[in-house]
Amino acid sequence: MKAVVGVDIGGTTTQVALCAEDLTVLDRLEVPTPAAVGGAAMVGAALDAVRLLLDRTDARLLGVGVGAAGVVDARAGRILVASDSFRDWAGFAVTAAFEEALSVPAFLDNDVNAFLRGEATAGAVAGEPQVLGMTLGTGVGGALWLDGTLYEGPHGAAGEIGHIPGFGDLPCTCGGRGHLETLASGRAIARRYGERTGRAVGAREAAESRDPVALAVYEEAGAAVARALLITAGLLDVTTVVIGGGVSRSWNLLEPSIRRALTAEPPVSGHPVRVLPALLGGDAVAVGAAARVREELGVGEG
Amino acid sequence: MKAVVGVDIGGTTTQVALCAEDLTVLDRLEVPTPAAVGGAAMVGAALDAVRLLLDRTDARLLGVGVGAAGVVDARAGRILVASDSFRDWAGFAVTAAFEEALSVPAFLDNDVNAFLRGEATAGAVAGEPQVLGMTLGTGVGGALWLDGTLYEGPHGAAGEIGHIPGFGDLPCTCGGRGHLETLASGRAIARRYGERTGRAVGAREAAESRDPVALAVYEEAGAAVARALLITAGLLDVTTVVIGGGVSRSWNLLEPSIRRALTAEPPVSGHPVRVLPALLGGDAVAVGAAARVREELGVGEG
Repeated sequence: MKAVVGVDIGGTTTQVALCAEDLTVLDRLEVPTPAAVGGAAMVGAALDAVRLLLDRTDARLLGVGVGAAGVVDARAGRILVASDSFRDWAGFAVTAAFEEALSVPAFLDNDVNAFLRGEATAGAVAGEPQVLGMTLGTGVGGALWLDGTLYEGPHGAAGEIGHIPGFGDLPCTCGGRGHLETLASGRAIARRYGERTGRAVGAREAAESRDPVALAVYEEAGAAVARALLITAGLLDVTTVVIGGGVSRSWNLLEPSIRRALTAEPPVSGHPVRVLPALLGGDAVAVGAAARVREELGVGEG
Repeated sequence: MKAVVGVDIGGTTTQVALCAEDLTVLDRLEVPTPAAVGGAAMVGAALDAVRLLLDRTDARLLGVGVGAAGVVDARAGRILVASDSFRDWAGFAVTAAFEEALSVPAFLDNDVNAFLRGEATAGAVAGEPQVLGMTLGTGVGGALWLDGTLYEGPHGAAGEIGHIPGFGDLPCTCGGRGHLETLASGRAIARRYGERTGRAVGAREAAESRDPVALAVYEEAGAAVARALLITAGLLDVTTVVIGGGVSRSWNLLEPSIRRALTAEPPVSGHPVRVLPALLGGDAVAVGAAARVREELGVGEG
């Protein structure tokens, strides 16, 4: 039996999934990410987890895919820009380290791209040729799946839907104003609820209890997500969207507000919009990274 | 010598260009479009012009490309949706009519797509692999050139940048609100100038004379165009834009206002934006339609 491994290196935890050739998750491990120690320690922790998973199976490893936050050079397998919480990570040659340690091919993706690859290959939008992927987490990430493959753009920066303008005038974490992230990220929802109530936490719970202030904050987040979908539908003729990240786990709050906004303002093209929650949960990035291996090596398809 | 013909069927005039294999315009004709008479008359008028051009040359015709307003089925060579001013045009099998009359292959494109194909093949952005094309005419049209080819989207509706939201709250001609077209079309500029001054015409002349009201209208149009560019840069990582249409002929008014907006709010990616005026003028659609013939037949390249 053959297997591929997907690794999701996040800010606090690293998820490793051992997948069959059809991307079924056979086994998984979650270990802390030693982000403050440095890049070598982070890859070392991930490698320890991979080896442990390989010890527990008879499957032969074909390759490893890695999904990581930040700007990555997917072709060179190297981190380009990382947040300050990751020490010695920008510039780290990730795939070279995995290839040397495991003697199999390794591939690197941005984590949001890996998320969408996972959902479009084995998740909520499996088989869909055209999809916008959005992650509503601390920030808002985005990725594009066009004609059955990731569209990364000429500088590898396509899909940055969190930081496009047209969403009011609030200051964004990136220094811009009026970006989608100012209304639809988990941080924005918490901040906007806090500004109106003085409470630092509890927006979700309050909204679940039908608190009107919290519901209004979710309504505005959903309307902003709907506007991002209309922009993508207009520009790219893409009408299928998969939404992941922490905020999407409040699907019962988010989905009706997106739906109401799209009913009030349907896409100009007349083609209906499909809005789906992510299906793979915490596995999405690791499964997407594993799917990249399968795609690059041309194995296990069909 | 071999030649290709490009036909631009507009609401009032039909432009026909006889092009060499390198897309140099060898000869051209402009005839009235008998839009109120019907599709057969429109194609007949265009064919008369094509035959006249062929009579004036020794070149052998390889094929004909047609650019037409409205929604077209580029694969089937048929008009899908046309404005009310065109009689018996929706449903018309354009390429079949040209092929039967001229015994050469014919191809049909939407006019904004043909405009961008022309500028990206033989105009202001020749050789650029990734370009957003915008036409600021009566309305606002858009098209996308990705990885060296037109990106038409799953339903052939990609590039509809005139009708994406995020540009305020004014009602749009399409029934939506806050679309780019409400600020940046020629009609919007005339309307907004008229609302503030009571004058139905003369916005451009007033702005040229540094009239502050007219300059403010152009400033808002340029800022809206800049926002559309930032949205495209964020979503598609595309940072080159070519702008055509009647409003772009006031480049000395438009360009500084776009520039000021992009200086105040640069793209998040950090990659500089190139904003270029169209180069082919009234020939752009016909040359782009001719370029389609060249592309489909694989002739005259390199």
